[in-house]
Amino acid sequence: MYSYTQLTNILVSIFEKMGCSSTDARISASVLVKAELRGIPSHGVLRGLEIFRVWEAGRINTKPNIKIIHETPSTATIDGDSGIGMVVGQKAMSIAIEKAKTAGSAWIAVRNSNNYGIAGYYSMMALEHDMIGLSMTSASPLVAPTYSADRLLGTNPISVAIPAGEQPPFVADFATTPITRGKLTIYSKEGKKVDKGYVQDKEGISSNNPAVLEDGGAILPLGGDYEHGGHKGYCLGSIVDMLSGVLGGANFGPLVPPMVAYLPVLQQTVGVGLGHFFGAMRVDAFRPLDEFKKSMDEWIGIFRNSKPVVGQKEVLIPGDPERRSEEEKMQNGIELLPAIEKELNQVLEKLGLA
Amino acid sequence: MYSYTQLTNILVSIFEKMGCSSTDARISASVLVKAELRGIPSHGVLRGLEIFRVWEAGRINTKPNIKIIHETPSTATIDGDSGIGMVVGQKAMSIAIEKAKTAGSAWIAVRNSNNYGIAGYYSMMALEHDMIGLSMTSASPLVAPTYSADRLLGTNPISVAIPAGEQPPFVADFATTPITRGKLTIYSKEGKKVDKGYVQDKEGISSNNPAVLEDGGAILPLGGDYEHGGHKGYCLGSIVDMLSGVLGGANFGPLVPPMVAYLPVLQQTVGVGLGHFFGAMRVDAFRPLDEFKKSMDEWIGIFRNSKPVVGQKEVLIPGDPERRSEEEKMQNGIELLPAIEKELNQVLEKLGLA
Repeated sequence: MYSYTQLTNILVSIFEKMGCSSTDARISASVLVKAELRGIPSHGVLRGLEIFRVWEAGRINTKPNIKIIHETPSTATIDGDSGIGMVVGQKAMSIAIEKAKTAGSAWIAVRNSNNYGIAGYYSMMALEHDMIGLSMTSASPLVAPTYSADRLLGTNPISVAIPAGEQPPFVADFATTPITRGKLTIYSKEGKKVDKGYVQDKEGISSNNPAVLEDGGAILPLGGDYEHGGHKGYCLGSIVDMLSGVLGGANFGPLVPPMVAYLPVLQQTVGVGLGHFFGAMRVDAFRPLDEFKKSMDEWIGIFRNSKPVVGQKEVLIPGDPERRSEEEKMQNGIELLPAIEKELNQVLEKLGLA
Repeated sequence: MYSYTQLTNILVSIFEKMGCSSTDARISASVLVKAELRGIPSHGVLRGLEIFRVWEAGRINTKPNIKIIHETPSTATIDGDSGIGMVVGQKAMSIAIEKAKTAGSAWIAVRNSNNYGIAGYYSMMALEHDMIGLSMTSASPLVAPTYSADRLLGTNPISVAIPAGEQPPFVADFATTPITRGKLTIYSKEGKKVDKGYVQDKEGISSNNPAVLEDGGAILPLGGDYEHGGHKGYCLGSIVDMLSGVLGGANFGPLVPPMVAYLPVLQQTVGVGLGHFFGAMRVDAFRPLDEFKKSMDEWIGIFRNSKPVVGQKEVLIPGDPERRSEEEKMQNGIELLPAIEKELNQVLEKLGLA
């Protein structure tokens, strides 16, 4: 069991040892620990260990010169100079927020970045400015489009954060697949099978093996098969790939640089590094803030107080489970899976930080 | 069988008889006929007949004074003055495109409108301006949030249109549910059952009856049950409801004015009429247009040429089926379901247009 501070400091020490400034190390650690706190361990320390391995392979620049390469009053494209995704993402979202202050809204495409952790970290940055925040990213190509046996998309998450008044904010943060790569890794480590409707083997045949990705298999898009709307998940994943990849000139589709050891590093490129897409919209660019917040509170109240189905105690608002997890873990500490803790200790030893 | 021109003229005559200007009648008819052409009959003449019934009930203003009530350089909120959704939507999307020309991007929230037909009509308006278009709308509350037995959301569609170069554009247009209300109506009229995973009865128990909505049942969000990611569809539907409803000050959630005869007109309101949300982003606000178009062509080529699963001939790009349908029907004509043709003739007779 680690306290929030302990785990943050451990990760900060790793990132500093990798060559990050202390500011950048703290940003990177914060995003990872936020994922642990919010009950998304697939994007926590586990993701940090992946970043370490990619850095070891010489594919991450820990002293990036992040810069705007194209802009208008309400848009910009940013080159992340191969930096850690969290550092690039935090900078890009800050620029979106600054631009939205003047223009009303702003959208930032990012190229030449790396995996940025949980999408929700960046969308939530908008909340304290009374803005609606949006964040999405390309990811390792492990998802098959509807009717395809090839892995052409990532789990491509979308996060939207919307401020409320008395109620806690609405925070949606979800992969555009029925299951994430990180969750499959955890199922694998725990020796569990998955239901049908999540993954297919390399011929496109439905499977229940969570390790199928390591053998050429693929995750299905949100919805599952065509009959259950999987083509809608394919649309969503594609939109994320085009805004995060194509729009800013990053790699896209199957050419997104992989973060996982079992995917080969590609020689072919169609852009620069990995991409993200961020947005911020001032609430008062549309409607007086107090009116909006009152309506959001009403929305949340109606949904929270709706009648649960048999067998369920309550109806949740997107963001509720993560917020409750965060409150609980800030108080009681963060538990790591034994397999992840072991790997973390190996990395600390390797870096002389044990 | 109707030709494109015949069907358009029939619908124009109805809208003119309802009091629309000839411009507004033609816009409304165009959106409905576009849905028929694109193979989405649930949003074609059928939707026109629903609009007629809502107009008959005195809930639609055919001479609306549509105006901007709030704006910044890249945003606006528009009041649709109870107009036909197609007329309001076309105006709002035009404003998004105009604003994006100067600001780089623009987002429009709409209140006091009505059902606007297919979301894709508006997003596609951006394509000829080399912009990325976005369109979404609230809809009649018939969808239950994950774990809720109550109907609190609409099928809340999202459409994103992205221009390409040599390739036809990418056009995603999908409900945030595994099935639409319109398709359930058509299943019902055809006497068919639906698979499990689409709808639940009024207690929240899974059902295969497409007419379950008429008895207090609900559509599930995209993904279906919680285990298959239905909570992600709930997130999506909620985001659409907040941007289309709450942001512009329209009604939201279960208080969205219903378009269907079996839902009661509500006395309670939390906003004004029904809402939509539109966006336009100039491609060259992020990246030189020719580079972007080349990358989009590459993206589309990679996906189209990927390996199909066993039993399928090809992998489709979002927008392919609708574009093919449009080409075929422009040539061979539009066939209406007998039940819909009968209702259309009844309306024409009622209006003295038979």
